[in-house]
Amino acid sequence: MADKITPRATDYSQWYIDIVLNAKLADYSPVKGSMVIRPRGYAIWERIQAEMDRRFKETGHENAYFPLLIPMSFLQKEADHVKGFKPELAVVTHAGGEELEEPYCIRPTSETIIWAMYKNWIQSWRDLPLLYNQWANVMRWEKRTRLFLRTSEFLWQEGHTAHETQKEAEEEALRMVEVYRDVVERHLCVPVLMGMKSEAEKFAGAVHTLSIEAMMQDKKALQAGTSHYLGQNFAKAFDVQFQNREGKLEHVYATSWGTSTRLVGAVIMTHSDDKGLVLPPSLAVDQVVIVPILRNDSKVAVIAHAEGLLATLKAAGVRARLDSDDSQSPGWKFAEWEMRGVPVRVEVGPKDMAAGHVMFARRDTGEKFTVPAGEIGTKAVEVLEAIQKNLFERAKKFRDDNTHVITNYDDMKAFFGLAGEDAAGTANAKGGFADALWCGDAVCETRLKAETKATIRCLPHDRQEGIHGSCALCGAPARHRAVFARAY
Amino acid sequence: MADKITPRATDYSQWYIDIVLNAKLADYSPVKGSMVIRPRGYAIWERIQAEMDRRFKETGHENAYFPLLIPMSFLQKEADHVKGFKPELAVVTHAGGEELEEPYCIRPTSETIIWAMYKNWIQSWRDLPLLYNQWANVMRWEKRTRLFLRTSEFLWQEGHTAHETQKEAEEEALRMVEVYRDVVERHLCVPVLMGMKSEAEKFAGAVHTLSIEAMMQDKKALQAGTSHYLGQNFAKAFDVQFQNREGKLEHVYATSWGTSTRLVGAVIMTHSDDKGLVLPPSLAVDQVVIVPILRNDSKVAVIAHAEGLLATLKAAGVRARLDSDDSQSPGWKFAEWEMRGVPVRVEVGPKDMAAGHVMFARRDTGEKFTVPAGEIGTKAVEVLEAIQKNLFERAKKFRDDNTHVITNYDDMKAFFGLAGEDAAGTANAKGGFADALWCGDAVCETRLKAETKATIRCLPHDRQEGIHGSCALCGAPARHRAVFARAY
Repeated sequence: MADKITPRATDYSQWYIDIVLNAKLADYSPVKGSMVIRPRGYAIWERIQAEMDRRFKETGHENAYFPLLIPMSFLQKEADHVKGFKPELAVVTHAGGEELEEPYCIRPTSETIIWAMYKNWIQSWRDLPLLYNQWANVMRWEKRTRLFLRTSEFLWQEGHTAHETQKEAEEEALRMVEVYRDVVERHLCVPVLMGMKSEAEKFAGAVHTLSIEAMMQDKKALQAGTSHYLGQNFAKAFDVQFQNREGKLEHVYATSWGTSTRLVGAVIMTHSDDKGLVLPPSLAVDQVVIVPILRNDSKVAVIAHAEGLLATLKAAGVRARLDSDDSQSPGWKFAEWEMRGVPVRVEVGPKDMAAGHVMFARRDTGEKFTVPAGEIGTKAVEVLEAIQKNLFERAKKFRDDNTHVITNYDDMKAFFGLAGEDAAGTANAKGGFADALWCGDAVCETRLKAETKATIRCLPHDRQEGIHGSCALCGAPARHRAVFARAY
Repeated sequence: MADKITPRATDYSQWYIDIVLNAKLADYSPVKGSMVIRPRGYAIWERIQAEMDRRFKETGHENAYFPLLIPMSFLQKEADHVKGFKPELAVVTHAGGEELEEPYCIRPTSETIIWAMYKNWIQSWRDLPLLYNQWANVMRWEKRTRLFLRTSEFLWQEGHTAHETQKEAEEEALRMVEVYRDVVERHLCVPVLMGMKSEAEKFAGAVHTLSIEAMMQDKKALQAGTSHYLGQNFAKAFDVQFQNREGKLEHVYATSWGTSTRLVGAVIMTHSDDKGLVLPPSLAVDQVVIVPILRNDSKVAVIAHAEGLLATLKAAGVRARLDSDDSQSPGWKFAEWEMRGVPVRVEVGPKDMAAGHVMFARRDTGEKFTVPAGEIGTKAVEVLEAIQKNLFERAKKFRDDNTHVITNYDDMKAFFGLAGEDAAGTANAKGGFADALWCGDAVCETRLKAETKATIRCLPHDRQEGIHGSCALCGAPARHRAVFARAY
């Protein structure tokens, strides 16, 4: 039985947790900072995984698997990398009943162990490119966690590619962030901005980082995927050289890119409402649930009829199920299936049966309408497509409505509120995306972050031409257009 | 370029390693006891995974994900379990820059963390059964490792189910070992014996263990999957009780079952030969490779023709590729594709083109025969099916030829040779499966193991009726028919 879900307007954070726990997507675990992904949550991840994996293979990538443990000395080899990750490491000091000579850390990301292997596998330009991806668990010890969005252990994929030239590697980094954008927008129905990170926000060890950024319903940003151009940093750290086409030794150019179970959190936070989970049809295990209205005198006939409808839906390629449990009332079941996020509910009772129709209820809009029983298959397909489209459009409108051009520092502070205020605690909070010109100086960025908690989410890729004007933070000539926001 | 592969008759262990390394299935890593699974090896695992996962879902199971780390105190709660696994644990003592109050171990298997969660999720018989599976990495610190077959970290799936009754749980354990048998025999073409483990060989914490056991080409046994009936052991250790249909509190009945990347090793060892890898068509990324015979005057025409053949093969549902690289000779390429284990090679040159046929070469038997070019699709499907069948039959014949009924201890010692002799070092070694009656006493089992290294692999499920006669080890009245072998 579903507990009450805290309304978004009351406490947005609690609303999110209530949905995750009540819809049985995940649970807290006895291991500090680690979560358990329950079957209904894991099924969402499996669908995201399947689509990502298909797209990676389509773009020429192969899956491989590298060790969970990384010798501590490997982390030290790339100076920025170790600085970025050292505070978050979990360390194995004992194994097989003995103290280890050199401790291992549990991978926070796998660049170092992978580049140690690439050294053995790459000799000539003929060995390039290496286009590898790994599906794995990683661990970054977090003090403050939130189910799916930030946990010490999480599941992800990490692509690690090696190339002959800077140009090829930069194209790869861009290609993969575009794959992310496309999957996240079309499959997860989450609109994103894609662009370069500022120096302060880039990956520890990258030359530059591209990211996709979504807006949640409390107007905060959520980083949904990153793709890094690593230059020759890791090749130099691990001495990976190849004989180029001119016969000269050169260090290899690299990328890495990742998305994680955080995407499940992004989907939940973007679409759900005060009744519970709302899922895009593409990610729903059950796209349609048939709830028959059972009365003693007509129960057998109605269930038989509903079974026929179920078969028609399945034949139409719809993932459908029938809830013929009669220990619960239809009203209870309606609420339960709404809470679980099934996109379409089909109601059918003796009167509907006699009239030759069924009742459709859309989870996204709440609309209800009758459909001739004979058209249930085609109509379901049509409505599911409409829901998939509507969820994206609705989220995009919300983001656009909450994106404002800001031109000076006072407006910026007024827009975000000060760091001390709990401006992001409810759905009625201040803030959103501030679209503003920026001089490129980290000093401006740091000052704004200290005062308002807002950071540069990215420099949107398609907004960097013809920059004129002055930095919204300091008034100096602008070099970039940036999107600022408070973020998860 | 392929290095030479050591023949099986010379050094079976080295032959196996040569194949794994030369076919680029896996590599050694800088992490003690851990391997890297390279793309060609991982692709085999992905196909095994996909088939297993499909079968698990078909039998009503759902996937979930539990934490990598387990509090050390949890391991202690089931006495046999901790005794079995403690010597192999990797222990995390520090995280986030601090020493942990309680150390965590990296999961060697997940019963304890899962049953700690089940306690929260199970109250009534209405919550049962829970039929969960997890795809994950686990770690058991091993002193002596072998690529795929025994590594400190490995990938696996572990099913963990909870039931109302002993009967249901025992049926589940049997159902899942039968799923394993079916997938391993039909998909991997590896014949197995299924049966109960002896007390000495069962899982630490189980009431009983069922396993499937294969025979490798050196006549040693390989355990390829296990399914455990856990009784109420873990439910008692973690205090997981449910209200049964009579309204009384009772401890839950459990099973767990697992298969791992070891199966990739089983496939390699069972089918391969001195030329390299041999793969069942069901597991091969490339089922057919077309190698065109390229001469300067006809190259363009032959490649165009071969591209047409490739399209026909793909249209017939065959995973095919064309190797039109002309920097290597056809002979070199033949050897290379044989080493990589592609089931069918199609050769086509200008003469074949003129004659309207192609040449087929079967990887399993080495047979070569011409096929009319117009029939390439249907013929490829037919030959791939024949190879799938032949690999299983061939392996089964080998196992049956090397299985002998043994009735007394002297014959047993002669069959296996003494433990000091390197009886299992080559393909010409002594031994195999000894099919023998057994009294059921662990003393007999221990003595044989000490003297010959042979252990009871299982008590074959279909050979336990009408047992008459005396134990082949001690002469006492027999209670079981057992299969003894040296094992990996």
